[in-house]
Amino acid sequence: MFEIVESGAKISKSQYKKRLPELRFELLQAQFALQKAGIPLLIILSGVEGAGKGEVVNRLNSWLDTRYIETNVFRVESDEQKRRPFYWRYWRKLPSKKQVGIFIGSWYRSSILKRVQDGIKDAEYDSELHRILIHEQMLAKDGMLIAKFWFHISKKEQKKRLRVLEKNERTQWRVTEEDWKHHDQYDDYKTASERAIRKTDTADVPWHVLDASQDRYRDLAVMEILLQKMNMALKYNGGENESSAGKNIQSQSALKPKNILDRIDLTQAIEQDVYSSEFDELKLEIDYLAWQCYRNGISSVFVFEGWDAAGKGGVIRRLIQAMDAKLYRVIQIAAPTDEEKEHHYLWRFWRHIPRDGKITIYDRSWYGRVLVERVEGFATEAEWGRAYSEIIEFEQQLTEHGTIVQKFWLHISSDEQLRRFKEREITDYKKHKLTEDDWRNRDKHELYKDAVHDMVAKTGTEYAPWNIIAADDKNHARISVLRIIRDKLEEALKSA
Amino acid sequence: MFEIVESGAKISKSQYKKRLPELRFELLQAQFALQKAGIPLLIILSGVEGAGKGEVVNRLNSWLDTRYIETNVFRVESDEQKRRPFYWRYWRKLPSKKQVGIFIGSWYRSSILKRVQDGIKDAEYDSELHRILIHEQMLAKDGMLIAKFWFHISKKEQKKRLRVLEKNERTQWRVTEEDWKHHDQYDDYKTASERAIRKTDTADVPWHVLDASQDRYRDLAVMEILLQKMNMALKYNGGENESSAGKNIQSQSALKPKNILDRIDLTQAIEQDVYSSEFDELKLEIDYLAWQCYRNGISSVFVFEGWDAAGKGGVIRRLIQAMDAKLYRVIQIAAPTDEEKEHHYLWRFWRHIPRDGKITIYDRSWYGRVLVERVEGFATEAEWGRAYSEIIEFEQQLTEHGTIVQKFWLHISSDEQLRRFKEREITDYKKHKLTEDDWRNRDKHELYKDAVHDMVAKTGTEYAPWNIIAADDKNHARISVLRIIRDKLEEALKSA
Repeated sequence: MFEIVESGAKISKSQYKKRLPELRFELLQAQFALQKAGIPLLIILSGVEGAGKGEVVNRLNSWLDTRYIETNVFRVESDEQKRRPFYWRYWRKLPSKKQVGIFIGSWYRSSILKRVQDGIKDAEYDSELHRILIHEQMLAKDGMLIAKFWFHISKKEQKKRLRVLEKNERTQWRVTEEDWKHHDQYDDYKTASERAIRKTDTADVPWHVLDASQDRYRDLAVMEILLQKMNMALKYNGGENESSAGKNIQSQSALKPKNILDRIDLTQAIEQDVYSSEFDELKLEIDYLAWQCYRNGISSVFVFEGWDAAGKGGVIRRLIQAMDAKLYRVIQIAAPTDEEKEHHYLWRFWRHIPRDGKITIYDRSWYGRVLVERVEGFATEAEWGRAYSEIIEFEQQLTEHGTIVQKFWLHISSDEQLRRFKEREITDYKKHKLTEDDWRNRDKHELYKDAVHDMVAKTGTEYAPWNIIAADDKNHARISVLRIIRDKLEEALKSA
Repeated sequence: MFEIVESGAKISKSQYKKRLPELRFELLQAQFALQKAGIPLLIILSGVEGAGKGEVVNRLNSWLDTRYIETNVFRVESDEQKRRPFYWRYWRKLPSKKQVGIFIGSWYRSSILKRVQDGIKDAEYDSELHRILIHEQMLAKDGMLIAKFWFHISKKEQKKRLRVLEKNERTQWRVTEEDWKHHDQYDDYKTASERAIRKTDTADVPWHVLDASQDRYRDLAVMEILLQKMNMALKYNGGENESSAGKNIQSQSALKPKNILDRIDLTQAIEQDVYSSEFDELKLEIDYLAWQCYRNGISSVFVFEGWDAAGKGGVIRRLIQAMDAKLYRVIQIAAPTDEEKEHHYLWRFWRHIPRDGKITIYDRSWYGRVLVERVEGFATEAEWGRAYSEIIEFEQQLTEHGTIVQKFWLHISSDEQLRRFKEREITDYKKHKLTEDDWRNRDKHELYKDAVHDMVAKTGTEYAPWNIIAADDKNHARISVLRIIRDKLEEALKSA
């Protein structure tokens, strides 16, 4: 999730200066309109230490009418607070219908700390996160607009920032031992935060995870998102469609992060002779590991998605060459049958879940819901919008059972796709693979790209990750996939 | 929760015979209409062992068109099931859009068993229940109509039924050791089931908890509720207001259980001299216990609700005579102030939550939301409908913090109320206590009674119970309340 945000998104000084006055004006207008409509606004600022939450507070107080803003920092627990139920401190500070409340170190902080410092177990952590979720939904249902921002910087950037502060005599004091301890535990915080965000990222109260490595970008992104949220809340105020309030903001934003696919180096290639020998080796290894997994009752689910003509079929054929046919099944996903249409869209995938020790390979998958069904409008926005969390839950159930889940997106450039389409047109035995749909999908390339980005950002989890495979070179695609699968089978056997 | 259901509700043979043909016809019609509309129906049958789930299945199969019903019993875990993620077994059996699925021993069974047999902790239990909840909501959002029935019989009734089966040679075999073990653990199952029901009782997929001690009543109640649910689903099909599908069925049903208030013996009274001496004693005890609680940091919240003129004020005055003024605060709840109106309705109650060791007495409370606001229409049905679970969550937070929560409903008969109103009219110093509102509320007596019943049924929890106090006799009311408070303070100190 966070890697995807680390896009190095930057905004030039002139861009910033150009947009700022207009944005400030619009923000103020929206604040007054919210006030008039009696919609309280709660802004929750969270994120990595050193990402600049404090600075954002200062900005917000200068951009908005500060008379109606109350900023609350919940860090050290006061005696008054300790002696009452946990949420009391937050209830007291909730903004009224005329106010804007800013919370730093909100209800998330304490749960994430408990997870990292005290090592509370999954069930307890999830139970706390669930409480947060129903708390936020209760407020949202009552009409509160809640904007949750997560500011992300990389571990390296965090270190750099701490160093800079330390070097300067005037800022030295700001760096505490605590800060360095946090830095050492960066990865633990990352994992804990990812889980927190994932479990509390709802249609009503979505998270906005931002790259905070450049101040200008961070600040402008906050403003743009806030403005859009406020305007949408005003638009839907009193209407039935309340839950649209938070939808799809980020992808509409002028500041949308660099698409994950644009960061893939498509020049990666593997020479034919290297390919041949490594392929033979990988085949033997995977064959052995698949049998070991069978004996240990470890099942696997491998999901293949990708652009048309990206070579999914070829990769899958190579993969199954490496495995005994008794151990795997390939499930081709095409348009749903009549029977399948009579059920929830996940039903047809659940049917083929492997039993312990077996492997199911999905050639296209449940991700159709958030790709083709989203782009082509086969699913409503509400339907594909809630599919992300449904899919996360589905895959979590698989991995909790002990199933290995690995997801692959085969990525090719638009040029390469065109080349392959044309090749198909003139090659007799490939002609049948090219349909009108393929050409139509090409026209919607940008829409699909956005959908892929969102899909990877929202459903790439530590337990069921997305692997984006550079596939302009077929050898590279095939070897990369097999390597990953070998490694994952090995890993699972080690911890079995 | 279950006590409230044990109303001994009965239906005569002739009533049953009269209603049955009509109901069967309507049910069949509704089944075909659902099928035509493409709405799958899932009926979940749960409850105490011996309550007759099997018999209800037989009835459903004879009432409905059995060609489209699939009954699934999930009891013993097959090898096939064990080797796949837990929910796989249920996914396979979910009804399609043309079908009715009946689940016995559904996803609830395993979690409740784990709680009682393996003693899983709160967090783990809640985490499983939360998974059930999102699973059901996912299906409901996709258009599935889910009817959840919980059949309740008392421990005594369960024993009687087991004995009857044992005595008959032909049914002896049906009673296993397992059954008797379950019977011994009746109370554990009850507590675990209450928690499960409470955590999964949502507006979209509500529970219907039924008294199953008379077959005729149980069967007719199932039919009536099913019919209403099906008709409502048809009515709202395709509309935005999907979440209305499950609302308020039980209270509209002709078979609504006997009102909890009608089961209170209002003749209970305490003689003046007994009253005086016990009151003096209770005062001393409570004074001492309140100080002990203060020293041990145990806080208390006492909530007083009741009919107009039921004597809340008098009880509270007696209670505070027993405590040092430093230890308690009485919060009088009237119409909300402007500031309070600017916040979520729970905000003004959170404000006054006692700090550790202190006592807050609420003279009327957050229950206004589901009483006066419901009856008078000050809150929308959606608002007061979701208030039950908001209140449960609120009180759970208090008790988890260690606060004692006790709720009192002072109950008087309609006649006694009228007598007191009239007395107030002619007594100068009481006149001011009688308002036009009081007379107006009297006209809505039945609506308030329904609201009280639902309130007690839905928010009476093991940790924050409702005490319904017979208050026609003021002495009895006062002593009863003081006794309960003494006992609860004592209990809390013992386990401190």
